[in-house]
Amino acid sequence: MSESYAGKINRKLLKKQRIIAAAAGREPADLVLKNATYVNVFSNELLTADIAITEGLIVGLGKYAGKEELDLNGQIVLPGFLDAHIHLESALVTPAEFARAVLPHGTTTVITDPHEIANVMGVDGIEYMLQATEGLPIDVRFMLPSCVPATPLDESGAVLDYRAIDSFYDHPRVQGLAEMMNFVGVIAGDEQPVEKIVAAQAHHKKIDGHAPDLVGNDLNAYVAAGVYSDHECHDLSDALEKLRRGQFIMIREGTAARNLDALFPLLQPNTADRCMFCCDDKHPSDLLEKGHIDYLVKRAIELGADPIVAVKAASHNAARYFLLNNRGAVAPGYLADLTVIDSFDSFQIQRVYQRGVLRVADGVVNPFPVPKVDDYLHNRARHTFHVDTLTAQDFMEPRPRGILGLVPGEITTVDAGYSDRIDAEYDVLKIAVVERHKNTRHIGIGFIQGYGLKSGAVATSISHDSHNIIVVGTSEAEMAAAANRVAELGGGIVVWNNGQAAAELPLPIAGIMSDLPLEEVNRRLEAAKEQAFALGVNPGVDPFMTLSFMALPVIPSLRLTTRGVFDVTTQSYV
Amino acid sequence: MSESYAGKINRKLLKKQRIIAAAAGREPADLVLKNATYVNVFSNELLTADIAITEGLIVGLGKYAGKEELDLNGQIVLPGFLDAHIHLESALVTPAEFARAVLPHGTTTVITDPHEIANVMGVDGIEYMLQATEGLPIDVRFMLPSCVPATPLDESGAVLDYRAIDSFYDHPRVQGLAEMMNFVGVIAGDEQPVEKIVAAQAHHKKIDGHAPDLVGNDLNAYVAAGVYSDHECHDLSDALEKLRRGQFIMIREGTAARNLDALFPLLQPNTADRCMFCCDDKHPSDLLEKGHIDYLVKRAIELGADPIVAVKAASHNAARYFLLNNRGAVAPGYLADLTVIDSFDSFQIQRVYQRGVLRVADGVVNPFPVPKVDDYLHNRARHTFHVDTLTAQDFMEPRPRGILGLVPGEITTVDAGYSDRIDAEYDVLKIAVVERHKNTRHIGIGFIQGYGLKSGAVATSISHDSHNIIVVGTSEAEMAAAANRVAELGGGIVVWNNGQAAAELPLPIAGIMSDLPLEEVNRRLEAAKEQAFALGVNPGVDPFMTLSFMALPVIPSLRLTTRGVFDVTTQSYV
Repeated sequence: MSESYAGKINRKLLKKQRIIAAAAGREPADLVLKNATYVNVFSNELLTADIAITEGLIVGLGKYAGKEELDLNGQIVLPGFLDAHIHLESALVTPAEFARAVLPHGTTTVITDPHEIANVMGVDGIEYMLQATEGLPIDVRFMLPSCVPATPLDESGAVLDYRAIDSFYDHPRVQGLAEMMNFVGVIAGDEQPVEKIVAAQAHHKKIDGHAPDLVGNDLNAYVAAGVYSDHECHDLSDALEKLRRGQFIMIREGTAARNLDALFPLLQPNTADRCMFCCDDKHPSDLLEKGHIDYLVKRAIELGADPIVAVKAASHNAARYFLLNNRGAVAPGYLADLTVIDSFDSFQIQRVYQRGVLRVADGVVNPFPVPKVDDYLHNRARHTFHVDTLTAQDFMEPRPRGILGLVPGEITTVDAGYSDRIDAEYDVLKIAVVERHKNTRHIGIGFIQGYGLKSGAVATSISHDSHNIIVVGTSEAEMAAAANRVAELGGGIVVWNNGQAAAELPLPIAGIMSDLPLEEVNRRLEAAKEQAFALGVNPGVDPFMTLSFMALPVIPSLRLTTRGVFDVTTQSYV
Repeated sequence: MSESYAGKINRKLLKKQRIIAAAAGREPADLVLKNATYVNVFSNELLTADIAITEGLIVGLGKYAGKEELDLNGQIVLPGFLDAHIHLESALVTPAEFARAVLPHGTTTVITDPHEIANVMGVDGIEYMLQATEGLPIDVRFMLPSCVPATPLDESGAVLDYRAIDSFYDHPRVQGLAEMMNFVGVIAGDEQPVEKIVAAQAHHKKIDGHAPDLVGNDLNAYVAAGVYSDHECHDLSDALEKLRRGQFIMIREGTAARNLDALFPLLQPNTADRCMFCCDDKHPSDLLEKGHIDYLVKRAIELGADPIVAVKAASHNAARYFLLNNRGAVAPGYLADLTVIDSFDSFQIQRVYQRGVLRVADGVVNPFPVPKVDDYLHNRARHTFHVDTLTAQDFMEPRPRGILGLVPGEITTVDAGYSDRIDAEYDVLKIAVVERHKNTRHIGIGFIQGYGLKSGAVATSISHDSHNIIVVGTSEAEMAAAANRVAELGGGIVVWNNGQAAAELPLPIAGIMSDLPLEEVNRRLEAAKEQAFALGVNPGVDPFMTLSFMALPVIPSLRLTTRGVFDVTTQSYV
């Protein structure tokens, strides 16, 4: 039975009375962290007090007694960290696994854009992620994917207009519309992207941006349209242009893009309060080796930032931007999301509290229940491949096709001419993108140079942003076999050789996430990489991530779509 | 017929497309302010650009052509000013008159608490002010009165619990719950005030505070309860205690209370962004002589504040606090609420734009339509006196009563003993409070010393916070006559002598506001003061304002309520 309004007010009254009684010292607090040095984000100073916590909230700073007390002996208490923009799917694990990975790094809130899974499953993907994050010991908030498919050239699993996503704005954990990548469409005043913006505004929600290097009056148009932030700034002048026009700057340091060093000068008094931190994408090894938002805080301090400024960028500033007004500070009435460190110099995270509950002590995460996704969505996520069994014939093509020339260490490509056959000796391999959502049998075929494979084939269903199957091979038969194995797994990464999988990482959730623990995913991924290198893949190339970007028709110059090789520079098929 | 959701999105789409086209430079802007020097509140610097305005919004900063163009030749453009907390009623004029008075001072938004009129008319008073401010050329936003009556000792025109005000939260111009003066009740966890707070929070609204000198764990309890600001700080340490706990500080400089000089040190980099400006109360002469929020900006600069910091306290900081996220900055997508000054040194306001419309040029306010209040409310406001004709007998009292001893220049009083008769020679006058809302015939009687009247009587219906009739006299008959005249006028200020009104200011709107122009109200008020002084009132006393506070049973030590003389220190009737 749903609660009446008067009943709701009464429930909140009773809770508030307990909070007030504890704050006033009439009742003992649930927990008191005695002798805490804490970052005061309002006065920008370190202060010392007992921190009293009741009902998951900080209720007071002063002298307190609690049912439970812990003497911090001056250890430093920070507001829990907040990642302002991340695609959880990039970690290749479930949200619960992601939470387990980032909690020891002091993260208590992430703002996610379920763009990847929505490109596979549409609104079911959004709902899947909402359910899979409900009640986690980190608070996962959502920005709704704004660009599904990412471009009109893509063949994704769904096409989402503003009506499709509208009802999600009523969800209590939805904060707005995610990165509006279609800045060209916005500036042109195109109906679809602009409708999405006005609908988000009609719901009083935020709209995040994505507009690398946009300047001048075009930038004015994009900002005036209602895009409030950007996380794509890679140099200071780009960032300042946006900041001056009122955009909040999300300083990004993730696996694929790393902008903190370039944008560090923003963390000065005049501009710091308009900045926050985000990761965008974090791959398993990066997450395990470098950590999460704590890595940005530590790096910023290392570069010379005032630690309080760095901590605010990692917490308070983002909370205010997203109108999460009771988090991001150590103050009465704020969520007891707290990260305890030994000192700013060594920055060892000792404990992490989330809503007043101890989640991590000495690096060990306390067990927590994994959210259950309902049966429909569970099954839906595990049956996203709709593609008939492929044969060598499907990959045959008598006419010459363009060659995507890899550039070592980059995700850009060059136009390397054309070919009508595989020539592994000269490193001309065949590459294909197989549409896998709707069994259209659309298979885009081209060639690739610089990948280095000498034997077998490599296939993956992580293929931005539509997550079709992308496969590279030294023979059409092995390409078909590798792609078939990916489909058979319901998604994954497969290194195929000698008629069998030399290595594989199944990704049965929408073809992009594993249900295994992060460490295991990372182990299998590293093992698969090793196999790929053993088969000749160029050591300067990431065997899978490189392929994942080959189908994204926004990065110059040649890309491969389900409809063939596309020149991004000339915007035409070659 | 109400608009469908799809229809609303389509309407907003078409408007947004016009904004984008103008911002991108494809269409001429409605208005371009060429060569403007403007305050950039994000990067904290002065920049120069053309400011393009379309559909009431700033759409771009750069090079623009417009249907209308004005070369500012480097004049400085500031965001329009915002008063974070004011009781409009204190200006004694209609909201339209108030708007006409403050527009030339660069004010484009005020946040009002209709506390005074609500104490007279209850929710009808709130609705009256909402209607009387609809469509004004300043945007009047509301905080709902939290304390009607102000204390349980008061006999006001209404008693408002959380249910009474709840539906107003859905009004698009209601931002939250106004100053929670009952901090004692909040800290005690009393049902009524805490219910009001949780209801405001349930509507995702702000709650303003009012808690002079509150410190320690009691302050923690008040803040943890959900009170987000304070405007009662009168010294720096008080303000810092509150700011450190997360409250925003409204630096107040009004007619009755002036805190800017004491709080000026807050306008430093570490704390300035948690501060905003407000006036609380502005009386007619003060408004005419000193101005409004511009006075605080100028005074802050004079005291040594960075002009950009002062401008932000007057605009941007308050806008963010109240979640008015598209005002308080000169940037794309923000309301074109702009104040143009010649320089920070001379600070002459040249022009004021509100939503892109020129409202003031060279001190002259362009005419605007006065909002119409509906007939029911119009009549309701003009019939708020329910009190039978009074006679001298009503003010007779054989038993001795306490004497309120005035302190020159203060609104506090001392306990000056007791008396059983008027003795004008020794400056012992009779004072009475006549309940006038519900014809209860409750008349509180006492004496007052230090007022100085030698002949006749003075009566006023401005009597905080219940606005009963307060009257002081040298004879009971003249007290009755003066009070009757106030009731006959439907409210006002009356100086009575020789069997007639020597001077009077009618206040027919709820007994607290005039329908005359501000200048005329001020002229009559000054004339009445002159008459009061001519009849002997002590030159160190404001003849009317002093009386207005005599019935407020929260200021030490003796006050007079409708039930008799009350000692605030001992909380008992004497």
